[in-house]
Amino acid sequence: MSEEEVREDRTRRQLRTSRMEAFSDGVFTIAGTLLVIELAVPPRSTHLWDAVVEQWPSYLGYLVSFATIGAIWLAHSVITAYLDHASLWLMRVNLILMLTVAFLPFPTKLLAEYVRESESERVAATLYGVNLLLTSALLHLFWRYAVRHGLVRDDAAASDVQVLTRRLRPGLAAYVALIVLGLFVPVAAVVGYLAIAVYYLVPLGQARRQRRIHQAMAPHRDQGRK
Amino acid sequence: MSEEEVREDRTRRQLRTSRMEAFSDGVFTIAGTLLVIELAVPPRSTHLWDAVVEQWPSYLGYLVSFATIGAIWLAHSVITAYLDHASLWLMRVNLILMLTVAFLPFPTKLLAEYVRESESERVAATLYGVNLLLTSALLHLFWRYAVRHGLVRDDAAASDVQVLTRRLRPGLAAYVALIVLGLFVPVAAVVGYLAIAVYYLVPLGQARRQRRIHQAMAPHRDQGRK
Amino acid sequence: MSEEEVREDRTRRQLRTSRMEAFSDGVFTIAGTLLVIELAVPPRSTHLWDAVVEQWPSYLGYLVSFATIGAIWLAHSVITAYLDHASLWLMRVNLILMLTVAFLPFPTKLLAEYVRESESERVAATLYGVNLLLTSALLHLFWRYAVRHGLVRDDAAASDVQVLTRRLRPGLAAYVALIVLGLFVPVAAVVGYLAIAVYYLVPLGQARRQRRIHQAMAPHRDQGRK
Amino acid sequence: MSEEEVREDRTRRQLRTSRMEAFSDGVFTIAGTLLVIELAVPPRSTHLWDAVVEQWPSYLGYLVSFATIGAIWLAHSVITAYLDHASLWLMRVNLILMLTVAFLPFPTKLLAEYVRESESERVAATLYGVNLLLTSALLHLFWRYAVRHGLVRDDAAASDVQVLTRRLRPGLAAYVALIVLGLFVPVAAVVGYLAIAVYYLVPLGQARRQRRIHQAMAPHRDQGRK
Repeated sequence: MSEEEVREDRTRRQLRTSRMEAFSDGVFTIAGTLLVIELAVPPRSTHLWDAVVEQWPSYLGYLVSFATIGAIWLAHSVITAYLDHASLWLMRVNLILMLTVAFLPFPTKLLAEYVRESESERVAATLYGVNLLLTSALLHLFWRYAVRHGLVRDDAAASDVQVLTRRLRPGLAAYVALIVLGLFVPVAAVVGYLAIAVYYLVPLGQARRQRRIHQAMAPHRDQGRK
Repeated sequence: MSEEEVREDRTRRQLRTSRMEAFSDGVFTIAGTLLVIELAVPPRSTHLWDAVVEQWPSYLGYLVSFATIGAIWLAHSVITAYLDHASLWLMRVNLILMLTVAFLPFPTKLLAEYVRESESERVAATLYGVNLLLTSALLHLFWRYAVRHGLVRDDAAASDVQVLTRRLRPGLAAYVALIVLGLFVPVAAVVGYLAIAVYYLVPLGQARRQRRIHQAMAPHRDQGRK
Repeated sequence: MSEEEVREDRTRRQLRTSRMEAFSDGVFTIAGTLLVIELAVPPRSTHLWDAVVEQWPSYLGYLVSFATIGAIWLAHSVITAYLDHASLWLMRVNLILMLTVAFLPFPTKLLAEYVRESESERVAATLYGVNLLLTSALLHLFWRYAVRHGLVRDDAAASDVQVLTRRLRPGLAAYVALIVLGLFVPVAAVVGYLAIAVYYLVPLGQARRQRRIHQAMAPHRDQGRK
Repeated sequence: MSEEEVREDRTRRQLRTSRMEAFSDGVFTIAGTLLVIELAVPPRSTHLWDAVVEQWPSYLGYLVSFATIGAIWLAHSVITAYLDHASLWLMRVNLILMLTVAFLPFPTKLLAEYVRESESERVAATLYGVNLLLTSALLHLFWRYAVRHGLVRDDAAASDVQVLTRRLRPGLAAYVALIVLGLFVPVAAVVGYLAIAVYYLVPLGQARRQRRIHQAMAPHRDQGRK
């Protein structure tokens, strides 16, 4: 294959990855921003401050969902930065992942509405947790699929790939545990979901692994300084 | 034409294709994500679980519309990956295609609302099917226009072009058949629309054709392994 | 300036244009897709078909607004394809243009709601026309600013620039005329707004000018065939 | 490191910045465009013109929020044009910034609804001001973080970096002053927020600094003319 052909192939593949990323970024940002539409303006007769304070479950739901979407987006960005190219099957897995991301505003709305209704509160927290679990599991699958089918760049260090795989795993068990907890203490489960999102966003006590991913993302500048 | 000029032309053309893709990705993702806004939160007095189960037509509508949008997006991505550049007329066809994609949330809403109302159910299913048929026909036209007016890349194999054309065609007949079926058994038609979307997303039993398209998308890596 | 520096500059400028385009594409697509949210589902007691037919002003408004947004987007794409780079002032003009594009769903909603209310109908049609006029005038200003301040690529033929300027001008006078007409026959004005959008989208009887713009967009392939 | 490796690194880093920009542009445009959904159509019995005039607080809120989002977007674009690459921590700061941008439509809605209700008006204006202050502070932090951690391009002049830092600072003090003012004269504070946005968008009397930033954005063309 001539050099020209290689460059053409590269362009074509980058285009492909770029559209999958564009579609994903669209869904992430819209789902994240739509959450705010669901925040209801209190009826005008009430005193606004009391009404706003009264609405705390809505704000908590907004925060947890935005944090989760942000965490999934960050992981998705790290993953696609490792990708050499996409494939039709990877795009299909991505579409199902996006289905669950786009759906998240609905259980968020249910949770905000039903959080202080004894029976229904449990149903809402469970549906919310199941949606988060599915999203997380599909993100996991998205990464595993890319690794197994040779879509990861050749220059990605094997240790980086392992670190990323290890980082994505614990979330699944935590979500299952919190869904069970949510059947008894729904609000505690929701706070737990926030904790998972924060764990993904800011890996406390894992500075070393962190740095390795960081180097994989921007090696030129880091190496240039040593 | 000097080499520099050729590169300039390339940049310009890629920019053009890139804006058409950006506009399309925007419409696809917004239409797909807006669907979830239409899902109504049940009034607070009801038991949530019963109310959620009762809403199944809304979820079915969400699933069918998201799957269809995903399938059209995937086909649109494959098509634009074959394009060498866009033209003003291709962008016009694309705008009409986007009009029908952007409209889809409305019949989805009608369908979810009217699915168990004897007479109106048929109207809703018909409007929904007509919208899907138009979207599919315009996607077909989009591809045919690009092929006929020399917008497809020179290095795209003739067999690939034929395969893609053949893959897009059966959907049209299926939509017409389901619109007729929908006059008698609306819910069956809706399930059929889901089947068409899945058929486009996951080409069962067509692994061979599939692989050819796959190779056209990312030939470098595949060839490198042989 | 070394060749490396020139390339760096180019990258930087392309980045700038690319973000202005990304912001614009976002506003265009969201404004275009939000229009469909405003389409109200008829209350369940009515017969759906009658209710849908009764809603024709909403569909007309949707069509006119989507066509106008599409026409403005197409012109915006042609303009930015001629740009060598952006400037802070061009981005400011673009922001005001986007303000008017993003606002369009509101007068569309007013128009659909009030179209058969004698007095208010005129107010709605006037507000709608003023919004379209402002959008068109700002698009005109956007292009003029780019031409006057040397943001257009050096290799853009002077004749192309004149053709584009001439194409953008007549819309302004037509909008003013239709706003006046709308004070007497509001629906006729709305149909006129659709005609303007179609005129911009499909330049009837102007195949020659059209071809020139087309060649400016994708000269390589066209020249290669001669 | 070979030249090929350097190019690979560059591609990778640009990809990273590009996804952060894509996510940000998505949130900016959606938040800006969603504002218009909140504009309520007056009930049909009223005379439309009176009703529209009566709604002026909604339009003021729309204008202030869109102008602020536009100003933040413009500053964000200038900042990312200076960036050499992104880092995971910068993306986290950006996510929190985006959280506050995405939230803005909610206090805008509260303000529009409560602007003439004595007590609640103050609460709404304060919440609105606090949201703007947070957004501005996070934008400041975003830039400072990039400067301190060596993410700014090597070829960015030190004077440019100082100018940008100086330009971002005064907004914070102004927001704090206006939040206090808003406790007494809420509408005056809102007009002040508009003034800050305009100050960021159009730097009056600062043509010289302005020109320097301009040159940093597009030096090639400017130098070519001298």
